[in-house]
Amino acid sequence: LDTSDGWLDGEDTFKILVATDIHLGYLEKDPVRGNDTFVTFNEILDHAQKNEVDFVLLGGDLFHDNKPSRKTVHSCLESLRKYCMGDRPVQFEILSDQAVNFHYSKFPWVNYQDENLNISIPVFSIHGNHDDPTGADALCALDILSCAGLLNHFGRSTSVEKIDISPILLRKGRTKIALYGLGAIPDERLYRMFVNKQVTMLRPKEDEDSWFNLFVIHQNRSKHGATNYIPEQFLDDFINLVVWGHEHECKIAPFQNEQQRFYISQPGSSVVTSLSPGEAVKKHIGLLHVKGKKMKMEKIALETVRTFHIEDVVLADHPDLFNPDNPNVTQAIQAFCMEKVELMLDTAERERLGNPRQPEKPIIRLRVDYAGGFEPFSVHRFSQKYMHRVANPKDIIHFFRHREQKEKKGIDLNFGKLVSRPAEGMTLRVEDLVKQYFQTAEKKVQLSLLTERGMGEAVQEFVDKEEKDAIEELVKFQLEKTQRFLKERRTDAEEEKIDEEVMFC
Amino acid sequence: LDTSDGWLDGEDTFKILVATDIHLGYLEKDPVRGNDTFVTFNEILDHAQKNEVDFVLLGGDLFHDNKPSRKTVHSCLESLRKYCMGDRPVQFEILSDQAVNFHYSKFPWVNYQDENLNISIPVFSIHGNHDDPTGADALCALDILSCAGLLNHFGRSTSVEKIDISPILLRKGRTKIALYGLGAIPDERLYRMFVNKQVTMLRPKEDEDSWFNLFVIHQNRSKHGATNYIPEQFLDDFINLVVWGHEHECKIAPFQNEQQRFYISQPGSSVVTSLSPGEAVKKHIGLLHVKGKKMKMEKIALETVRTFHIEDVVLADHPDLFNPDNPNVTQAIQAFCMEKVELMLDTAERERLGNPRQPEKPIIRLRVDYAGGFEPFSVHRFSQKYMHRVANPKDIIHFFRHREQKEKKGIDLNFGKLVSRPAEGMTLRVEDLVKQYFQTAEKKVQLSLLTERGMGEAVQEFVDKEEKDAIEELVKFQLEKTQRFLKERRTDAEEEKIDEEVMFC
Repeated sequence: LDTSDGWLDGEDTFKILVATDIHLGYLEKDPVRGNDTFVTFNEILDHAQKNEVDFVLLGGDLFHDNKPSRKTVHSCLESLRKYCMGDRPVQFEILSDQAVNFHYSKFPWVNYQDENLNISIPVFSIHGNHDDPTGADALCALDILSCAGLLNHFGRSTSVEKIDISPILLRKGRTKIALYGLGAIPDERLYRMFVNKQVTMLRPKEDEDSWFNLFVIHQNRSKHGATNYIPEQFLDDFINLVVWGHEHECKIAPFQNEQQRFYISQPGSSVVTSLSPGEAVKKHIGLLHVKGKKMKMEKIALETVRTFHIEDVVLADHPDLFNPDNPNVTQAIQAFCMEKVELMLDTAERERLGNPRQPEKPIIRLRVDYAGGFEPFSVHRFSQKYMHRVANPKDIIHFFRHREQKEKKGIDLNFGKLVSRPAEGMTLRVEDLVKQYFQTAEKKVQLSLLTERGMGEAVQEFVDKEEKDAIEELVKFQLEKTQRFLKERRTDAEEEKIDEEVMFC
Repeated sequence: LDTSDGWLDGEDTFKILVATDIHLGYLEKDPVRGNDTFVTFNEILDHAQKNEVDFVLLGGDLFHDNKPSRKTVHSCLESLRKYCMGDRPVQFEILSDQAVNFHYSKFPWVNYQDENLNISIPVFSIHGNHDDPTGADALCALDILSCAGLLNHFGRSTSVEKIDISPILLRKGRTKIALYGLGAIPDERLYRMFVNKQVTMLRPKEDEDSWFNLFVIHQNRSKHGATNYIPEQFLDDFINLVVWGHEHECKIAPFQNEQQRFYISQPGSSVVTSLSPGEAVKKHIGLLHVKGKKMKMEKIALETVRTFHIEDVVLADHPDLFNPDNPNVTQAIQAFCMEKVELMLDTAERERLGNPRQPEKPIIRLRVDYAGGFEPFSVHRFSQKYMHRVANPKDIIHFFRHREQKEKKGIDLNFGKLVSRPAEGMTLRVEDLVKQYFQTAEKKVQLSLLTERGMGEAVQEFVDKEEKDAIEELVKFQLEKTQRFLKERRTDAEEEKIDEEVMFC
């Protein structure tokens, strides 16, 4: 194993800037946060330029709105024209049939080969669920950029019968990348297409094993209901690296799926769009180096992202402080929350002092569990106090009551997200079955690891045979996935400062 | 006078394609007419390319909607990228300070000088009232094109205090053009600014008289109320040619304003957006040649414009055919109208046979004056019959009753347009004064021609002194203007097939 960093540059090494979920235009009318997405997009492209990357790879949701405002489109074009045009020559070539790769474009070739455009950094992007093609003409906002020659929109599939993912074949020196992309498709539909083997990843006929296979996808990675996500195991195991968009938590360090050989990098969003813990994880983009079949993902911390701090307070956990029968308890709670917020503001301010590019006002969220006979206080008056000190004064406090039935011990099936998202009919039904399974199964049941084939069969059964049996299979699968998930979280924490370097042999 | 055509090409001759009011996206969701504007825009740019023009000059309302749809923006970018990029070198240079000319642009220089863009046909455009800048960021749809490097948006003024129109100074060989532009401003505001001498057209300091002064404007040219238009006389008389946008009737042959030295060319729209007689005039764009101070406007008939035929039927004019007391009169009227429509369809079909690029279904409008005790028949049933034969089945018939008070003889003050537009309060008041003036003034009063200075004074009086006196001055001015208008119409008819060639000495 070559552990020197000498290979990170050079004529055989691709340097790829990886980012996703930039959500341009998010809260654009907010007087405080309105420009955040534009500022960070410029920071991202500036990193691309300074690092002299070969190309930028985006994982969808470049735009927050399906029909972005004039200002948003204008600002995006401005950034792309400013950072991605220029004289630095592009060092890689495309070996695949571009008319296939970009068949939906009016100009079906990569922008840097257009003789009328002087592109120094080609940007490749799939679309996300926020900026997916709609309307009679099936255009998406990315197509505006593509038509203007400033972005290469790929990974588009409109058939509901069959998806053939044809890679863009790139070569730089002796390194060859097969770049696969699949723009966002409703999860349940894509789930079923995978199950029914309607999704095919095409491979180059010659020297099949000489390619670094890079796949970018924009789907639910964590389970939001039985079929409302894409299990990692669905993906072909010839893939080397999956760049997974859509999930906003930054887990950019490539993590290996244990059943399959591939690694997954989840860059996460570059803007906080929901006040949930995952969004409070420090935001990064990646500088991916690929030489032959060796890769390294360098994490680049984004400096212009508005800091976000979230904490939970469980009132019932402080019987010494709060007695629901005390007539002044509400004032006491309010004072306690204020103290908490002040501490969070202090933390945020210290963080910002080390990073002058960070926007001044932080996003602060204090979640107050008032179960146990407490009453919420007036959020409006509380907000007023922080009007000029936080970026989100109106939703700084969130009151909730912890559900009694929520499983606090044992294996966390990550149902947490379901709480904040309205569950659909079917979802609830399946979850009930899952609960039933847990109640009847032995506690220390030794689960055999399912192979990919095993998984495929289980899902087939779910579709074809007795539903309940299949559900049990899925639950086993889920349990095992969850164990991995927990392990991954530990690993993530351990690896916080470590770049990931991997070699495929 | 050099009457040969040798000068129409050559290194000292500018060739400029002139068009206006293309209204991209007009009726884009109409299953029949939805693509008309895009097709004709391509035709226009194709003429520009085939004629190897130096640049394209647009007079505003390139877009129909202030916030054009994704499809419309996409289609426009596609056309501009397809026709206006390429290797043919641009043969003129810009002598003025581009940072001033394009000061609102994020890229304040002409697109063809951007080293990252290979532009063969620069497009210059002012904005119209349909695509004017709006919102907090004061962007307009043209700015998207400008930011993408595919159009040069100029003539923007945001001050309500003072407008300084700074020309783009162009030189090709020995010919120098000072190109002035003024994007649409509400007519009443601009009227007052002219009256208050808040509008200044800046002139180059050196060789002031060596420039061909070309001004493009997008305002009401015909009077819609006392101050709801821009009198030609307001414009500086050092101008050589005014390209007047906004008015949809094609009067592209340059017509000389009698008080001032300049000529006015009104290209008219390239799509029918209202079913009025002015829109039925054959649509043209212009190929303007300028050498030194000599100019020639060549008319180019547009072939892809959907043909539009409009006729009026006055039921009361046919007492032999229609008797309101006859119980079957409605059927008789309907049969008569159907016959009329069939004749119009025949005419349209013959016209189309000579022009295979014209869309198949014509726009037909029959205006039926049912004054005199008649009743309208069911338009719905009538429309049904023509559903598959005309492009506008729903509004093929328009019933109206001629107003008794409408002056049919004497001088036509062109109030016709007021009928179709709701008059504003002030407008009505002034029109009443005009009527009063006509009732009291001698019929054959010899009107002295007002000089420009005289006009200025009259308007000043309107603002500063007794209103009624000023109104009389304005009426005199209007009468005289109307005489010119009538003469112009005659001239237009005479010159239908004649190119205009003019030399300024």
